[in-house]
Amino acid sequence: MDAVTTVGAYWAAANARDWAAFGDLLSPDLVYELPQSRERITGRARYVQFNAEYPGDGWVVEPVRILGGASYAASWIRFRVGPDEQTGVCFFDLDEAGLIARITDFWPEPFEPPGGREHLTERY
Amino acid sequence: MDAVTTVGAYWAAANARDWAAFGDLLSPDLVYELPQSRERITGRARYVQFNAEYPGDGWVVEPVRILGGASYAASWIRFRVGPDEQTGVCFFDLDEAGLIARITDFWPEPFEPPGGREHLTERY
Repeated sequence: MDAVTTVGAYWAAANARDWAAFGDLLSPDLVYELPQSRERITGRARYVQFNAEYPGDGWVVEPVRILGGASYAASWIRFRVGPDEQTGVCFFDLDEAGLIARITDFWPEPFEPPGGREHLTERY
Repeated sequence: MDAVTTVGAYWAAANARDWAAFGDLLSPDLVYELPQSRERITGRARYVQFNAEYPGDGWVVEPVRILGGASYAASWIRFRVGPDEQTGVCFFDLDEAGLIARITDFWPEPFEPPGGREHLTERY
């Protein structure tokens, strides 16, 4: 499997709450980082627990893009809980065994446009 | 050129302020979207002007990851202005001529960790 196939299986397992299949895609030494809050989770077991526990149930992930190559991939997802939707972007690094060894996770939030460019932009 | 090579050239041209080379990578019908502020720029000329004008000079882009395939790519960059650094993530869609036809741009900003997961995370 290349990284794109692996990341497709990762999101499918997450949506199915199939934590055994999810864990099988991860290196035992996985490092997960959230640069925006400077949080880190180390190790497969803790990371599976994090996904199983947080943020409760009722969520579904819709991939918008999954792309990359043999060892690197990125995903852009819609994370939906009822009527609420957040955007998530992850970068994945795979190890030589094809397991996910590093995940860098971003959650870009809405902001107001800064001034000085409204002559070039429209709002949608 | 595949999309990864094109996006590498895109950032190199931006860093060099070589707006002719930058524009040559773009479709005349380019659509640029910033989902966080719901801003859109349509057309190559306006988008080149936006990059040339905004946000002034003195910035440099350091790509952290550029990945993808024939027609799709993603980049994760560090955008530096003096001592300040922001993280940028873009998704690029290329048209059949190999020109960048769509850019979706995200700027994830720092946030405080939400509660309820500190038993699994460390801060860095």
